[in-house]
Amino acid sequence: MKTDKHIAIAGAGPVGSLLALYLAKRGYRVDVFERRPDLRAETLQAGRSINLALSTRGIRALDEVGLGDALRRVAIPMHGRVMHSVQGQISSLPYGKQGQFINSISRSGLNVVLINGAEAQGVNFHFNQRVAHVDLQKTTLTLQQNGGEKKLAFDAIIGADGAFSAVRAALQFTDRVDYSQDYIDHGYKELHIPAGPNGSFLLEKNALHIWPRESFMMIALPNPDGSFTCTLFFPFEGATSFASLKTNEDIVAFFKNTFPDAVALMPDLLHDYQTNPTSSLVTMKCYPWVKNKTLVIGDAAHAVVPFYGQGMNAGFEDCRVLNELLDTHHDDWDVVLPMFQSQRKQDTDAIAQLALDNFIEMRDLVADADFLLRKKIEARLHELYPEQWIPQYSMVTFHDTIRYSEAQALGRKQKRIMDDVMKLPHLATTWQSLDFQQLVRRMQEA
Amino acid sequence: MKTDKHIAIAGAGPVGSLLALYLAKRGYRVDVFERRPDLRAETLQAGRSINLALSTRGIRALDEVGLGDALRRVAIPMHGRVMHSVQGQISSLPYGKQGQFINSISRSGLNVVLINGAEAQGVNFHFNQRVAHVDLQKTTLTLQQNGGEKKLAFDAIIGADGAFSAVRAALQFTDRVDYSQDYIDHGYKELHIPAGPNGSFLLEKNALHIWPRESFMMIALPNPDGSFTCTLFFPFEGATSFASLKTNEDIVAFFKNTFPDAVALMPDLLHDYQTNPTSSLVTMKCYPWVKNKTLVIGDAAHAVVPFYGQGMNAGFEDCRVLNELLDTHHDDWDVVLPMFQSQRKQDTDAIAQLALDNFIEMRDLVADADFLLRKKIEARLHELYPEQWIPQYSMVTFHDTIRYSEAQALGRKQKRIMDDVMKLPHLATTWQSLDFQQLVRRMQEA
Repeated sequence: MKTDKHIAIAGAGPVGSLLALYLAKRGYRVDVFERRPDLRAETLQAGRSINLALSTRGIRALDEVGLGDALRRVAIPMHGRVMHSVQGQISSLPYGKQGQFINSISRSGLNVVLINGAEAQGVNFHFNQRVAHVDLQKTTLTLQQNGGEKKLAFDAIIGADGAFSAVRAALQFTDRVDYSQDYIDHGYKELHIPAGPNGSFLLEKNALHIWPRESFMMIALPNPDGSFTCTLFFPFEGATSFASLKTNEDIVAFFKNTFPDAVALMPDLLHDYQTNPTSSLVTMKCYPWVKNKTLVIGDAAHAVVPFYGQGMNAGFEDCRVLNELLDTHHDDWDVVLPMFQSQRKQDTDAIAQLALDNFIEMRDLVADADFLLRKKIEARLHELYPEQWIPQYSMVTFHDTIRYSEAQALGRKQKRIMDDVMKLPHLATTWQSLDFQQLVRRMQEA
Repeated sequence: MKTDKHIAIAGAGPVGSLLALYLAKRGYRVDVFERRPDLRAETLQAGRSINLALSTRGIRALDEVGLGDALRRVAIPMHGRVMHSVQGQISSLPYGKQGQFINSISRSGLNVVLINGAEAQGVNFHFNQRVAHVDLQKTTLTLQQNGGEKKLAFDAIIGADGAFSAVRAALQFTDRVDYSQDYIDHGYKELHIPAGPNGSFLLEKNALHIWPRESFMMIALPNPDGSFTCTLFFPFEGATSFASLKTNEDIVAFFKNTFPDAVALMPDLLHDYQTNPTSSLVTMKCYPWVKNKTLVIGDAAHAVVPFYGQGMNAGFEDCRVLNELLDTHHDDWDVVLPMFQSQRKQDTDAIAQLALDNFIEMRDLVADADFLLRKKIEARLHELYPEQWIPQYSMVTFHDTIRYSEAQALGRKQKRIMDDVMKLPHLATTWQSLDFQQLVRRMQEA
């Protein structure tokens, strides 16, 4: 298709860049405006990249724009969780079936590939340009750069400018826009495990590491250079919290007592802890996402906490769904935009809740024998009935044809059934002789 | 007590003025900054005043500052709801026991009394001054007037500047402030029933009139001049909605078919409908309410929909509770502010939900025979056991010693018991012989 329609995208992050690429491939003229400098010009600090978990939903979109293979090559497969106890004992729990994995990938590396891909498709990127104003009636964007201002008109404006979106702020300023921001009591701080000799990995490479400590946790994801990026998720306030660790001695003692095997691998712990910011974690929702010809998408429309590893994947799925609707409705934006938001909202609400729920699973339950037994029984159910019983984590992470809202609803049903199973006596020794077929039959019931 | 502490209040509405008066009486130096002009200078359009329902919680605060009697004299008691059917049939439902009533009072009239009262106590009011910036660290307020700006420092700043509070906006700009705004699908429009000959009331004077129409409703409250202020609560969109009434003919036909007895009393209906704005209805929540020495209060902290008639009463109760805490803690603001928000938040959350629930009751259930029977049984329970069974409406409206959150919790318990009662066969004819004592006993159970 050829069109003279001109689309503005605010935000050159992964979602904005991917959407630009999708739209350029459809034949649109696309300009992307980004508040920050071009991240390709910055010196990337080797081994200090922030990594994300890329999974099936995200990969499907990348495949559609032709970048899947290139990105798969720089990603590190993580086949399961590896849990570290206080005593340094290691246990592991696969994410799915044999051959299913999520991918640790550098956020900035991924972003660069997407920007380059979009540019190759004719997208114009404009960096250091701040959205100062959006006129939702006239579909104009007022941009600030070096103190100067310019106003540009478009056929549509898409805000992919993240949780603190300027486009959403303009939307919110109009009447009857629902909005919420909910912070959790935990913040996070990034820490670092450097590579061993010759770029070797000092922990199991192909896994997401978790140090579950009930009310908080640390995790680590592998980087291609052999290092791991660790994230401590920790309460802001309280007896054991960011606020309670006041002195160097407090910090070192806490880590030595709580994560002894990790501390041994963290030579710069104290420096990292003191230098790296403590950041907050928020769920943001808004609705509608559309006014006239302006839309918000990705984190700008639905920022979620990171505990399901789905924030970016959900944003990428937004792009794929929008592109699909443009296909179906012959690029009639007046039809597509309202349809997109009403269809997609329930799914992003679902993943927002699932992400909150998964924090409890990660920091507490993965260290719990009953929980591991439950996972084992569900894995067997899935093995025996691969279509009728797909564990919720797998539906969310490995199945891009099951909507988030379906995964949530089916997962609730599974939970009720499994709650009953878990009440059975001597289950740890008898679970293999459960009537699995009857359990699956309960899934078909209303 | 004498103090040299200097308090700024943003907003000279009823809550800001009342709080100013409370604090001036405690000996504080108080300045109130209001964006709008002094409403005392405006010509009040006779009979066109917007009225509010003032009830026990609000009156208690007014009594504490010595203005209760003056305001009681200009209020019109409303002893119950009078329902108008489409056929013009009238039925009524008392609000509480004999002698209990809510009060229709002019918002602007009440506001003037409070401003005058506060001024008499030494409060300085500054009109036409917009809050441009709040520095939460330094407790300074930057105010704009006629293009000029000044920055003033205070010992505390209190934002009583309503649902779209500038002080709350400053608070929200900081990290880790939860916030939500939720619009309902209905908007409202004010209409008017003028007085009859010699200022006579053309509908029953001492009542709140409701035209319940299931998915929407109109209400009317009496004014001292014999007129009634009507409010149509109506969906924005849909088959029967503000959007669907397009022409003069649509409007007239809709009112004639839907509110025939009211239309006969509304000579300016068409003009009012076309001239008066259609406004939206929102629930707003935020937390924390306090950062350092800055607090939000009233609608700025917890705007609710109007269906329980408690918005202003809740704001007045905020002032009373804050004043009480200042008493108890010897004006130690560092102790009082955090205590105020943590104590009060659950109560304002409760009234927010109760107000949403009451819309369904008002627009739909008050026309329902089962609902009226339920109310009759509860009234009998209250008569027989005046302390053990107080209907929820009475707890909220007539009992200032029962917290909103308690009223909500007790009301839920009552509802479960009454749901069981309502399942009994032939209840309409047999309810008088119910075992009332046993029902009350269930309220004592866990």
